[in-house]
Amino acid sequence: MNKPEELCRLAKQASLKTAVLPHEVRRAALKKMAAALSEHRDLILKANLEDRQRAADENLSPVLIKRLLIDEKKLEDMAAGLLSLARLPDPLGRKTLKRELDQGLILTRRTVPIGLVGVIFEARPEALVQIAGLCAKSGNALLAKGGREAEASNGVLHRVLREAQIGTSPDWENGFLLLHTREEINAILSMDEYIDLLIPRGSNQLVRHILDHTKIPVMGHAAGICAMYVDKTYDREKSLRLIRDGKTQYPAVCNAIETLLVHRESADILPRLLEIMPEVEIRGCGETQKIISCLPASSCDWETEYNDLILSVKIVETLQEAIDHINAHGSRHTDVILTEDKKAAEEFLNRVDSSSVMWNCSSRFADGYRYGFGAEVGIATGKIHARGPVGLEGLCIYKYILEGNGHIVDDYARGLKSFTHRDLI
Amino acid sequence: MNKPEELCRLAKQASLKTAVLPHEVRRAALKKMAAALSEHRDLILKANLEDRQRAADENLSPVLIKRLLIDEKKLEDMAAGLLSLARLPDPLGRKTLKRELDQGLILTRRTVPIGLVGVIFEARPEALVQIAGLCAKSGNALLAKGGREAEASNGVLHRVLREAQIGTSPDWENGFLLLHTREEINAILSMDEYIDLLIPRGSNQLVRHILDHTKIPVMGHAAGICAMYVDKTYDREKSLRLIRDGKTQYPAVCNAIETLLVHRESADILPRLLEIMPEVEIRGCGETQKIISCLPASSCDWETEYNDLILSVKIVETLQEAIDHINAHGSRHTDVILTEDKKAAEEFLNRVDSSSVMWNCSSRFADGYRYGFGAEVGIATGKIHARGPVGLEGLCIYKYILEGNGHIVDDYARGLKSFTHRDLI
Repeated sequence: MNKPEELCRLAKQASLKTAVLPHEVRRAALKKMAAALSEHRDLILKANLEDRQRAADENLSPVLIKRLLIDEKKLEDMAAGLLSLARLPDPLGRKTLKRELDQGLILTRRTVPIGLVGVIFEARPEALVQIAGLCAKSGNALLAKGGREAEASNGVLHRVLREAQIGTSPDWENGFLLLHTREEINAILSMDEYIDLLIPRGSNQLVRHILDHTKIPVMGHAAGICAMYVDKTYDREKSLRLIRDGKTQYPAVCNAIETLLVHRESADILPRLLEIMPEVEIRGCGETQKIISCLPASSCDWETEYNDLILSVKIVETLQEAIDHINAHGSRHTDVILTEDKKAAEEFLNRVDSSSVMWNCSSRFADGYRYGFGAEVGIATGKIHARGPVGLEGLCIYKYILEGNGHIVDDYARGLKSFTHRDLI
Repeated sequence: MNKPEELCRLAKQASLKTAVLPHEVRRAALKKMAAALSEHRDLILKANLEDRQRAADENLSPVLIKRLLIDEKKLEDMAAGLLSLARLPDPLGRKTLKRELDQGLILTRRTVPIGLVGVIFEARPEALVQIAGLCAKSGNALLAKGGREAEASNGVLHRVLREAQIGTSPDWENGFLLLHTREEINAILSMDEYIDLLIPRGSNQLVRHILDHTKIPVMGHAAGICAMYVDKTYDREKSLRLIRDGKTQYPAVCNAIETLLVHRESADILPRLLEIMPEVEIRGCGETQKIISCLPASSCDWETEYNDLILSVKIVETLQEAIDHINAHGSRHTDVILTEDKKAAEEFLNRVDSSSVMWNCSSRFADGYRYGFGAEVGIATGKIHARGPVGLEGLCIYKYILEGNGHIVDDYARGLKSFTHRDLI
């Protein structure tokens, strides 16, 4: 048995144990994990410096090096995040159904952890802390692989957090394992026998590669092609403020807007765009180009996540055209309508098939922290299990529990007994 | 563009329309579908006779031919099933979260259909009616492929039901399409761009084939290897009745038991097994063979779904051994403990990692109808989205809707505003 398979097997076995740890134990582990980050501060900062020095030596971009950074403030934020997870109510054991099937035959449905979660993430080492915290809270075992650039930081964070978990309960012995090489990632993609869910957090290429090479269910998003649509009835100044926020507040993230759709009757805001965001490159449709001087948008532009100060702009004749454009070219992430017309807003919110749809606010709100989930595993754009910002709920599933007293099906099949199907909650 | 791709594209477009049909319309369609089954009774029965005659000509097994049968009674049951779906509350538009993020910035989460569901099923033509009903109720578009043996029946049922749907709303024009050839199945397996969820209902081979050849999420189960564990403290007569029901009441289905685990202290029931179910072939572990005369169980037996009057039997020394056996060899479908010991029961129900876990009742209750879901799409044994018997809820997902009044993220990032995160429901 090769090494990654053995790790998967051990982590899967551990998941059966972490799944039944009481909430007090999971909560105590989170507190211990938070304390461990402070205790081992010097060790963590030293490892992080090592990563950043190597990154500088290898001429990585300043943006990437900045993402790698762990400083005292970030370390405090990570610890605070773990403590806030500790305070949240238990996501496990919630009864979501209780039904009498017949006298003495009671069905309940109860939330349980998914099992073994594999997370593959790039760059930011704080993601490891956040994910380890979410998994500890939800009783899932975790198999994680971080980016090579943050290897030293991830190694120390993993050791420190894992020790804190095992110190709380020996059942965590193999409940949080770290992989080290790219070969190991490729190996675990075939381990659908052990891994219940894969969560890739990183570049479109990473997510695509994983989707294309595994039978394990994947939760995540390959692209964040978000659009903002200015309808014919919205205040120009408000529109410009929202467009600016959606595009420039943090252009490198998935919930920034890439496309601006403008109703013809609102096209007079286009010249103002150039004034308020001179740093943004506009790529316009033919109609847009008649109004402002900008580069032409090719058909590729409507399906590109720039992650940069570039915005594709299209003039539409109707609300329906805007909706159709988004459903055809968007990535089901987050899309926004700006309008004073309540009926138009409802039509947009109903018909746009995205995980988050918004009315008169910035797409940048699509985020687990801002939605109040405490932390997020990531943002999912699939259509099953969990969509949008995914917090603890997305790491849980349920089981049915049926309790009887010698009840057999034959009695019902022969008509001797019949079901009552009476809901008890 | 080849034909299956064109069908997928049309059905996907239709799904955006069926998703927003009001409940009155979906309900009216179900009533019209039920009425259409009666109206076209002669046509349906004639097509079914044709299928059964061809099956007889081709020397298909009597069991298979019986499964194909549609008679007046079955047709009435199908219509009644559609009417009972019509009466159920709307699964769509349910608010599962409403939260104030800040003053005037309100987040809601609302149930919506998944989109385009692909269902591949074998033999029983009534499955087509049930699935079409569930999809109509939940606003999903449906692309279905039935077994070749039921081709004429499926063809007529599809035409009749689809006409009823389109007669209710033209938005259903491409909302329910039927594929005809095996080549078309293989073609649609690659259409992850259009199909949101695949549900295979049929043999293990069919499910395996689909799992191995698609990137589309799959909901279903490849195997139903269900176990019943007789603990040391359960009444012998009740045990025997439950074992008999679990094994023989309908041995060909996935929720029948394949394995019996017996605590050593209860091993005296083994000779009685032979008396009460002489028709069942027992394959025992070494310890079992010391007590009764039976065939030996090989290691394969613990992982085989017989779907037949065969039962593998193993004597265990402890509750933990039973739990470990099930988690190692079972298929996460349905497993049962028989015991008077509440603590042992709790341990089993908590630690057995199956979608349905049961205490003192028959595994055969694991079924959407018996659980009170009205109808079922199938039984799922995966760990995400939906597990166990899957009814309407498993055909729904949610979207987040955020309504504001010009709110931008920059105000929060700069500390000018802060989130209130106040739950409103």
